[in-house]
Amino acid sequence: MMESRDLIKNKIEACAIETETALASCVSAADADLKKIADAQTYSLLGGGKRIRPFLVLAFCEMLGGAKEKAMPLACALEMIHTYSLIHDDLPCMDDDDYRRGRLTNHRVFGEATAVLAGDALLTGAFGVVAEAKALSAEEKVAALALLSAAAGAEGMIGGQTMDMAAQTDDISTDEAYLVKMHGMKTGALIRAAAKLGCIAAGRGCDETVLAAADAYAARIGLAFQVVDDLLDVTGDAQTLGKNVGVDSAANKLTFLRFYTVEGAEAYAARLTEEAVSAITAYDADGTLAALARYLLDRKH
Amino acid sequence: MMESRDLIKNKIEACAIETETALASCVSAADADLKKIADAQTYSLLGGGKRIRPFLVLAFCEMLGGAKEKAMPLACALEMIHTYSLIHDDLPCMDDDDYRRGRLTNHRVFGEATAVLAGDALLTGAFGVVAEAKALSAEEKVAALALLSAAAGAEGMIGGQTMDMAAQTDDISTDEAYLVKMHGMKTGALIRAAAKLGCIAAGRGCDETVLAAADAYAARIGLAFQVVDDLLDVTGDAQTLGKNVGVDSAANKLTFLRFYTVEGAEAYAARLTEEAVSAITAYDADGTLAALARYLLDRKH
Repeated sequence: MMESRDLIKNKIEACAIETETALASCVSAADADLKKIADAQTYSLLGGGKRIRPFLVLAFCEMLGGAKEKAMPLACALEMIHTYSLIHDDLPCMDDDDYRRGRLTNHRVFGEATAVLAGDALLTGAFGVVAEAKALSAEEKVAALALLSAAAGAEGMIGGQTMDMAAQTDDISTDEAYLVKMHGMKTGALIRAAAKLGCIAAGRGCDETVLAAADAYAARIGLAFQVVDDLLDVTGDAQTLGKNVGVDSAANKLTFLRFYTVEGAEAYAARLTEEAVSAITAYDADGTLAALARYLLDRKH
Repeated sequence: MMESRDLIKNKIEACAIETETALASCVSAADADLKKIADAQTYSLLGGGKRIRPFLVLAFCEMLGGAKEKAMPLACALEMIHTYSLIHDDLPCMDDDDYRRGRLTNHRVFGEATAVLAGDALLTGAFGVVAEAKALSAEEKVAALALLSAAAGAEGMIGGQTMDMAAQTDDISTDEAYLVKMHGMKTGALIRAAAKLGCIAAGRGCDETVLAAADAYAARIGLAFQVVDDLLDVTGDAQTLGKNVGVDSAANKLTFLRFYTVEGAEAYAARLTEEAVSAITAYDADGTLAALARYLLDRKH
């Protein structure tokens, strides 16, 4: 068990290094006047992170026999969108966070205006990375771009962020269904997109059976990830997490711990993880995606 | 002369109405939880404006014998990107404007967080509108998406906004070349994209001669537009403009009036306009684009 955990950990880390090399080439500064906005993008884009979404894109593509050079631009685009969302979520008018992954947030380093623009630039650039990708066919690019826009937009990630803010500030009733829907959009949509982008890169973007299996897997690991996040927020320690423990509950955030005991939430996350593994068993011959799901369940930060 | 001016004015207004109908269908709210973010997008997207960019897309497509149903999704996507940029530019951390087109700015109505997200959603949705467009081929969509990303990104519109902010806040030396470059990116990039999107919609996206003519025309009307904007800011009156006259110069903004007299700037804008007209004479059989260029030169707001 420990061995397989080290194996997937190494695989994720190796993939992160490779992804970061590719990401570094996605942002460029044409000249001195544009250096600041490039620096602000790079600061957050290359500022750490587990690179789980790129890993998912690449792992699904590999699992289905696809070529890495087709998956990598999609992995980079998705990570650029994820990064932009973190920059904007950290803004004073949103979550007002000073730290992210143990470093100052983008607006604390570059100022609020540049942080807004750096986020905008990463989002805009993400679509360009896909549109300009050499290894993908026009049809594959269009499928990926449509998926990215839907997953990141007002009925995906942005909609989830809107629901999250409404739960904190507006006088609305929030139940577990609201929380599940909110997370399904805020974080789930991009994670599901990751798995499906991997299918598209492998030339299986029209195979509904494969897409449905990828989606079922990703939806469950996404939700489990969030349940574990809420658990870590009450049980983890600040040093391991790189952020202030208890901040989420202090700000009256809606978390799973409002509806579950710690033990109940742990059981829920474990069940989701096993359901995820079952969903892709038919394709996951070497067990990489099963190992990933269990690795994310057992993480300490 | 007066007659031709009315003609183009009517044509622009008819096109704006048609564009607004199409734009209204680009934003939807799946359910009650997502109503606020949809409302915030719609407030700005359908909040007036001359719709010059959509007109350019449609006029170039028509001039080249293309079908309107291919141009309209590109026109809508471009206007969504333009609208998002206005929402973000108006934010307290940017230009901090309370009014836009005689109405309260987005963040003054919906709050700063929702305004940031509404802008993000319009930008994200713009790429989806192109990717999902039924009448365009996959190759045409990819060409349009690559163009939109480059024009709106860090080396286009966002780069221009960064340069504009730097001119106001940083200790950098700014000359006329800086101003021309800044406008060329901040507003010019999208206007040039508009003309070229029209060419793509007409199936001429690979015709370098046509693209170069479209680009030359659009670059010049874009710059002339900005010179006229600066002129109107010192000569116009607040009621006609719908914003406070003199605000730009008061905030120590970099404008053409720092380098030109009023008469000199008027002559410069007129020269750019005639150069624009010359650039597309070979294609502009019915004179629509010539009339547009002169109409924009003579505008009072």
